Amino acid sequence: MTPAAPQPTTHRVVIVGAGFGGLECAHRLKGAPVSITLVDRRNHHLFQPLLYQVATASLATSEIAWPIRYLLRDRPEVTTLFATVNGVDAQNKRVLLDDGDALPYDTLVLATGARHAYFGHDEWEPFAPGLKTLEDATTLRRRILVAFERAERETDEERRAALLTFVIVGAGPTGVELAGTIAELARDTLPPDFRNIDTHKARVVLIEAGPRVLAGFADDLSAYAQRSLEGLGVEVILGQAVTECSADGVVYGGQRLQSRTLIWAAGVRASPAAEWLGASADRAGRLQVLSDLTVPGHPDIFAIGDTVVVADPEGKPVPGIAPAAKQQGRHVAASVKARLAGQVPAPFHYRHAGSLAQIGKRKAVIDFGAIKLRGTIAWWIWGIAHIYFLIGLRNRLSVAISWLWIHARDQRAARLITQGSSKVAR
Amino acid sequence: MTPAAPQPTTHRVVIVGAGFGGLECAHRLKGAPVSITLVDRRNHHLFQPLLYQVATASLATSEIAWPIRYLLRDRPEVTTLFATVNGVDAQNKRVLLDDGDALPYDTLVLATGARHAYFGHDEWEPFAPGLKTLEDATTLRRRILVAFERAERETDEERRAALLTFVIVGAGPTGVELAGTIAELARDTLPPDFRNIDTHKARVVLIEAGPRVLAGFADDLSAYAQRSLEGLGVEVILGQAVTECSADGVVYGGQRLQSRTLIWAAGVRASPAAEWLGASADRAGRLQVLSDLTVPGHPDIFAIGDTVVVADPEGKPVPGIAPAAKQQGRHVAASVKARLAGQVPAPFHYRHAGSLAQIGKRKAVIDFGAIKLRGTIAWWIWGIAHIYFLIGLRNRLSVAISWLWIHARDQRAARLITQGSSKVAR
Repeated sequence: MTPAAPQPTTHRVVIVGAGFGGLECAHRLKGAPVSITLVDRRNHHLFQPLLYQVATASLATSEIAWPIRYLLRDRPEVTTLFATVNGVDAQNKRVLLDDGDALPYDTLVLATGARHAYFGHDEWEPFAPGLKTLEDATTLRRRILVAFERAERETDEERRAALLTFVIVGAGPTGVELAGTIAELARDTLPPDFRNIDTHKARVVLIEAGPRVLAGFADDLSAYAQRSLEGLGVEVILGQAVTECSADGVVYGGQRLQSRTLIWAAGVRASPAAEWLGASADRAGRLQVLSDLTVPGHPDIFAIGDTVVVADPEGKPVPGIAPAAKQQGRHVAASVKARLAGQVPAPFHYRHAGSLAQIGKRKAVIDFGAIKLRGTIAWWIWGIAHIYFLIGLRNRLSVAISWLWIHARDQRAARLITQGSSKVAR
Repeated sequence: MTPAAPQPTTHRVVIVGAGFGGLECAHRLKGAPVSITLVDRRNHHLFQPLLYQVATASLATSEIAWPIRYLLRDRPEVTTLFATVNGVDAQNKRVLLDDGDALPYDTLVLATGARHAYFGHDEWEPFAPGLKTLEDATTLRRRILVAFERAERETDEERRAALLTFVIVGAGPTGVELAGTIAELARDTLPPDFRNIDTHKARVVLIEAGPRVLAGFADDLSAYAQRSLEGLGVEVILGQAVTECSADGVVYGGQRLQSRTLIWAAGVRASPAAEWLGASADRAGRLQVLSDLTVPGHPDIFAIGDTVVVADPEGKPVPGIAPAAKQQGRHVAASVKARLAGQVPAPFHYRHAGSLAQIGKRKAVIDFGAIKLRGTIAWWIWGIAHIYFLIGLRNRLSVAISWLWIHARDQRAARLITQGSSKVAR
C-alpha cells in the first residue's frame, strides 16, 4: 500500500496530526508551491474543548468532529492519509507508517498532540480513564450513565453511595467543566427519570493537588469558580494528591473515598515525537524546540502544539490550548512559505488571547489578562466563542439547538449507553 | 440487587423490551390501576426505520435514540430497568434476569424483537453483519468508511476493486434503503474528498433470492424501485441465493464476487421468547400466539411485535414493521384494562396502513393498498411521516436539519470512524 507519490519537483510537506495545529498549518499553506500529505490515525478532526460535553451526554459525537478529508476537499494539492505513524527516519527524510510504508518529505511538521498521563501510575488508567478522543468520551458517558443505572437497582446503601460518587482528579478547565456538568446532570436532568434513587444525592468530588482550581486563571476567578462549583454541589478538595486509584475508589491525603466512577483530568504526556527523533524532551515527554519551532539539529522538522514545550515572551511555557496550537500551525506555514521564497523565517511569538472555562450551564470565567469576566455574561461570551470556532453552519446550528434544549428543558439528547447491553452494568 | 417491589395490592405488569410494541403498551396503560416494570437490556428506545441512515453516516446516533426512562419520566407508576432477561418462570410468574434476580408479574408482555438470521450459517455473521442495534449501525458505518480509506491507499487494482465493492444481501426495505444511500454516498458525498480513487466507480450490488425487490409492495412499485436503484448505479441481482460469505466476498449462483464490505439484510430470527416458555414457534423462532395475542396455555402472558407470528384478517402474517408492533402494544394495553374491568378482551385485528421505502435522497415508494405513490411526492410523504413519528421537537428539528444538509450540499455529518484508530483499517 504505497500512497500516490506527489510531483517530485514540488516541495513535499508532510504534516502528522490533524488537530488544531496540524490542520491550521495545512489551511495556511494554501497557495504555497507545495504538495501536502496530512496523516492522522483518526479520520476526524476533533473540537477537543467541547469533548467533556460528549462525555456528559450534552452533545453528540458528530457535533464536534469532522472528517479530515472533508475539511480539505477543495485543496487538490492536499492528500489526507488515514494511517498511524510510528517513527521518523530523519536521515533519509521519511515518515514511517506502522504498516511498513514510508512517506518522503522535504519539510515535516509534527503535530501529534498528547495523551493523559498518570505520573508513573499507568495501572490507574483502567479505573480512572481520561478524556482525549471521541472513544474516551463515549466510554466516560457510558460509565457515568451506567453508574446511575446500577445505583437504581442497588439495595445496599454503601454500594449505592459508591455508585453515586463521581470523582474527578485534576481541577484544570477540563476537570472543572466535567465536575460542573456532572453535578447538573444529577441535579437537573436525571431526577424525574429514576424511581429508587434520588439523583440529587449524587456526590461530585473534584480533587486537586495544587492550592486552587483553574490554576491558569487569576486568583479571584479561581475563587469564583470554586464558589460556583460548590453552589452546584461539587465538593472541591484542594492541596491533596491522589495516591491510589482502584476499582473501589481513590485514596488522597491518607483518606479512602469509595467511588465507582473516577475520571482523570490531572495531566498529559506528549506523543512519542521526541522518541522518534531521539531529541531532548521535558518530563512530560514534550519536545524542546527552537524559537522558530524547529527541532534542534533538524531544520526541516517543525513540531507544534501539545507535543512541544516552548516559552512565551515572558519565559513561561505556552499553554496546551487550541489557540496556541493554531498560532504555531500558522507560524510554521508562514515559515515554510518564507523559506521557499528565500527568506529567513521569524521566531515564533505566542500571544495569549485569554483563558475560558464553563462552570455549569449558566456561568463561566474568562481571563483576558487586563479584562476578567465571570458569571452569566462570561457564559454568553464563552458560548458564542465556542460556536464561532466550530466548523460549518450545520454544526453551529446543531450545537446551538442542543444547548438551547439543555438550558430551556434540562434535556440532554445524547444519554446513550452504547458499546454493550446491560451486561456492561456489572 | 433486588428492584424495589411494586405495591403488592396493585396488578403488576412486566413488559420486556422497549421497542415500538413494548413502549406503546406502556404508554397506553396510562391511567390503568397497574404498576409497570419495563425491562430492556439497552438504555434507549431506537427508531429502527432510520437505523440505515446512521449506518450510512447520514444521521447521528442520538438523533434516532432516546433514553427509555426519559420517555417515561412523567409516569411514577412505571419503573424502568436496565437489565437482561434470560428466562421466564411461568409457573411462579416470574421473569428471570441474567444477574440472578427475578421480577414477579401478574401480566407479562414479551416484546423482545428479533435479530438478523443467517439461515443456519451463523459463521457468516462476522463477514456480513446485520443492522438491528446502534452498535450494528456504527460498526457498519466504520466498515463502509474504512473501505474507502483503504481503497485510497491501495495500489493493486484487484484489491482496490474489492474494497470499492459493497454487497447488500436481501432487497427488502432495509436492503433497498442501504443500497440507495451507499450509492449516493459514493456518487455525491465522497468524490471531492479523495485523491487517488474515483468513488463514482464504487460498485453497490444488491442480491435478492426472490424474484423482485421490495416483495411486500405492489409489482409496479417494485419495478419502479429497481429502476430507481439502477439509476443510482446500484446493480440489482434477483433470483439468486447467496451460498457463501467470507472475508473475500460472496458466492451467489455459482459466481464469486470479490468484496470487502458485505451487509446482511436478508432475514431475521425472533428473540428466544418461545424457548423461555417452551412454546411452539415457526421456523424463524417466532412465537405462535392466539388471536388475543396471548401465548397458548398462558393467558397471563402476551407476546407482540417481531417476536411473534400472527395472522392479519386475510390470513397473511402481520409484517414485522413498527406500526404493526405499535398496534399490538396498544391492543395488549386495552386487553389488560378490559380484564381488570372484568370484561373479555377483543381479538387483535391488524390494519395495514401502508408500506414505505426510501430510494436515495429524492425518491420513495409508498403502497397504501388502494393508493400507490412513487417519486418525489412519495419522498416528501416518507420524510414528513418519519419526522412526525420521531419523538420530541428536538430530534425532529435535528433530523430535518441533517436531511436539509444532505439534500442541499450532499454533506453527511456523521462520517466518523470510531471504535479504533487507523489500525482498524487493516
